[in-house]
Amino acid sequence: MRRVSLEALRDFTLEALRRTHVPPNHAEIAADVLVTTDSWGVFTHGTKLLGGYLRRLREGGLRLNGQPRVVSQGPAWAVIDGESVLGQVTSHFAMGCAMEKARACGIGFAGVRNSCHFGAAGYYAWLAAREGMIGQVTANDIPGMGPPGATQAVFGTNPFAFAAPAGLHPPIVLDMALSTVAGGKVFAAQQRGQSIPEDWLIGFDGHGTADAGAFPDKAFLATMGGHKGYGLALMNEILSGVLPGAGITWGVGSYLFGDQTSPTNHGASFVAIDVSAMMARNVFQERLDALIDQIHQVPTAEGTERLMVPGEREWNCRAEAEKHGIALPRDVVENLAEVARELGIRVGWIDER
Amino acid sequence: MRRVSLEALRDFTLEALRRTHVPPNHAEIAADVLVTTDSWGVFTHGTKLLGGYLRRLREGGLRLNGQPRVVSQGPAWAVIDGESVLGQVTSHFAMGCAMEKARACGIGFAGVRNSCHFGAAGYYAWLAAREGMIGQVTANDIPGMGPPGATQAVFGTNPFAFAAPAGLHPPIVLDMALSTVAGGKVFAAQQRGQSIPEDWLIGFDGHGTADAGAFPDKAFLATMGGHKGYGLALMNEILSGVLPGAGITWGVGSYLFGDQTSPTNHGASFVAIDVSAMMARNVFQERLDALIDQIHQVPTAEGTERLMVPGEREWNCRAEAEKHGIALPRDVVENLAEVARELGIRVGWIDER
Repeated sequence: MRRVSLEALRDFTLEALRRTHVPPNHAEIAADVLVTTDSWGVFTHGTKLLGGYLRRLREGGLRLNGQPRVVSQGPAWAVIDGESVLGQVTSHFAMGCAMEKARACGIGFAGVRNSCHFGAAGYYAWLAAREGMIGQVTANDIPGMGPPGATQAVFGTNPFAFAAPAGLHPPIVLDMALSTVAGGKVFAAQQRGQSIPEDWLIGFDGHGTADAGAFPDKAFLATMGGHKGYGLALMNEILSGVLPGAGITWGVGSYLFGDQTSPTNHGASFVAIDVSAMMARNVFQERLDALIDQIHQVPTAEGTERLMVPGEREWNCRAEAEKHGIALPRDVVENLAEVARELGIRVGWIDER
Repeated sequence: MRRVSLEALRDFTLEALRRTHVPPNHAEIAADVLVTTDSWGVFTHGTKLLGGYLRRLREGGLRLNGQPRVVSQGPAWAVIDGESVLGQVTSHFAMGCAMEKARACGIGFAGVRNSCHFGAAGYYAWLAAREGMIGQVTANDIPGMGPPGATQAVFGTNPFAFAAPAGLHPPIVLDMALSTVAGGKVFAAQQRGQSIPEDWLIGFDGHGTADAGAFPDKAFLATMGGHKGYGLALMNEILSGVLPGAGITWGVGSYLFGDQTSPTNHGASFVAIDVSAMMARNVFQERLDALIDQIHQVPTAEGTERLMVPGEREWNCRAEAEKHGIALPRDVVENLAEVARELGIRVGWIDER
C-alpha cells in the first residue's frame, strides 16, 4: 500500500495519457474518472486500468484522433458513436447528452455504440446526481458470466449503476456487476487456497462449484440471484447493445486481451431524470435524506454497526483520501510503475515504493 | 386444479367487479390484468387477488368513484395521482402516459402516487412491448424484506419489471421481486416441513436461517444477492416513492391486512422507450431475435433442455391456456368461490369444483 494525494495521482495519469498522445480534453476526463474511482476505494476499476488502455491506444484499437458524436437524436434521446476513443470519454459525453435532454424534457436517454471498457459505471450515474438528477447506467461486455444450467458464459458481467442526489447526505451511488461476485474475489480465494460458496461460479458442467481454482479455465462467474441476475443481464444487453446498435455478447471485444488493433464495440446506455421537473429539488433531497436516516436507524445484528446505503462506503473512502491521500494497494502501484517505466516518467511516490 | 377458459374467467371477474360497483372501464382493465396474469401461470398475482381488492373497495380504502389524473407534466414526464382507485387502473393509465410521452420524445417517465397493490409489474412493462416499445416498471410496498445484518424488514419486496419487443419470438418480459424468493415459496417449504437455503430468510437476529417456520413471525425475506438486491430495492423506493411523492417504506399500507378504509399510498414508476425513434423497429426486432436464438443455442447441463429467456415460460403457459383453458390451482379456485358466495354469483366451473 502507498498513500498518494489525489493531485499527484491525477498528474501522473494525465502525464501518461499526454505522452501517449491522448488529446488534453480526453485525458482530463479519463484521469478524473480513474482517480475518482480510486478515491472511492474501488481499486479494481481505477488507475489500475491505465496500462491496458495505453497499450490499446498505442496499438490502435482505441483511437487517439476520434471524437464521440451524436449519430441521431430527438427531443429526449440520442444515439452516440464513440468512434472507439477511450470509453470514459464517450461515456462522459453520453451522460452529458442525456442530462441536456433531461433538462429540456424531464428525462433523457443516450444509447452508445462503438465504445470501449468505461471503468466504473457508478461514476457516470454520479455525474447526473451531482447536478441534481437521477442517473442510470447500463453496459455490456464480452461474456464471462452465465446462469445455472448453462455450460458456457452467456453475458458479460454487464454493470448496472444508479445514482440520486440527497441533501445533507452524499449522493446514493449504486454500482454493481450482475455476477454474484467479481472475478477478483474468486482469484483472491484461489490465492488463499480457500473454497468458495457454490453460487459464485458455474462449472462447465453447468453446476455451481465451490472450487475457486476452476476459474476461469473450467468455470465462469455465476449470475447473481440465479435467473434474476440473468434476466437483468439480458436487460442490460438490450439497452446497451441491441438498441444502440453496438456489439452484442460475443460481438464485444475484450479491452485487455486479444487483438489490440481493432475496436471492441462495447455498448452502453445512460438515462438522466431531472428531479426538479417533478418536485422541488430541496423537497426531493429532504425526502431522500429522511429515508437514509431511517435506514441508518434500523436495528442491526452484532457485528453490523449500522446499515449503509449504496455509495456510503465509497464517500467515506473519498473523505479519507482527501485528508490523507489514497491508500493505493500494491497491485495498483505495480501497474502504475510499469506504465512509468514504459513512458520514462519519474515520480517519487512510485520510485520510492 | 380446474381448467377454465380465459373468457369465462374474465366474465366472472368482470361480474364480481360490476356487483361491487366498480365503473365498467375500470373493471375491464382490472379484469384484463388479472386474467392475463393467470394465463401466464403467475397465479400468485392473478385473480387470487380479487377477493382482497373487493373487500378494500367495499370498505373504502380503494375508491370506486376516483379517476387517476395527471398532477403535473412536461414533454417527457408526468406525475400521476391514482386517487386510490384500483392499482391496476392507475398503472395502466400511467404506462399509457409514459408511452404517449415516448411517442413524442423517444422516452417517457410517469411517476405515480396514491396507488395501491397493482398485481404483476410485468403486465405494464408488456403494454409497452406490445406497442413496439421498451417498458420498465418499479413499485414499492410495505416492508417485508431486508439485507443480512438488519434485524427487521427495511423495504417491500419492491418489484422490478422490464419488457422489450422481439419479432419472431414473443416479447421479453422480466418481472421479479427483489427478494431471493417470494414468501409463497417459504410457506410451501413450511407445509412440506422442509428446510430452506440460508439466503431465503433473515431471522430477527440479523442472520440467514434455514428454518422456513420462522417466517413471518421470527424472520423476514432476504434481499436477493445480499447487498445488491438491497441496493436495487432502494432504487425502486426512490423511483416509486421518493420522486412521485408517494408513501415510502412504512408509509405504504398493506393492501390486504390492517385498515381497509384508508388509502395505502403505494408508489410506482413507469418508463417507456420508443424503439422506432432510434432504430427501425424491424431491425431492433431482428437483432433481439438473433440474441434470443443465440441464448437458445447455449449448450446446457443434463436436466436443462435449453436456456429460456424471461417471459418464455409465461408465453408457453399462455398458448396452452388459450388452447385448453387456464389450469387454475385449487387455492385460486377457493378464493374465487368465496367471492362468488359473497356476491351471489353462480358459475358452473366454480360450483362444480
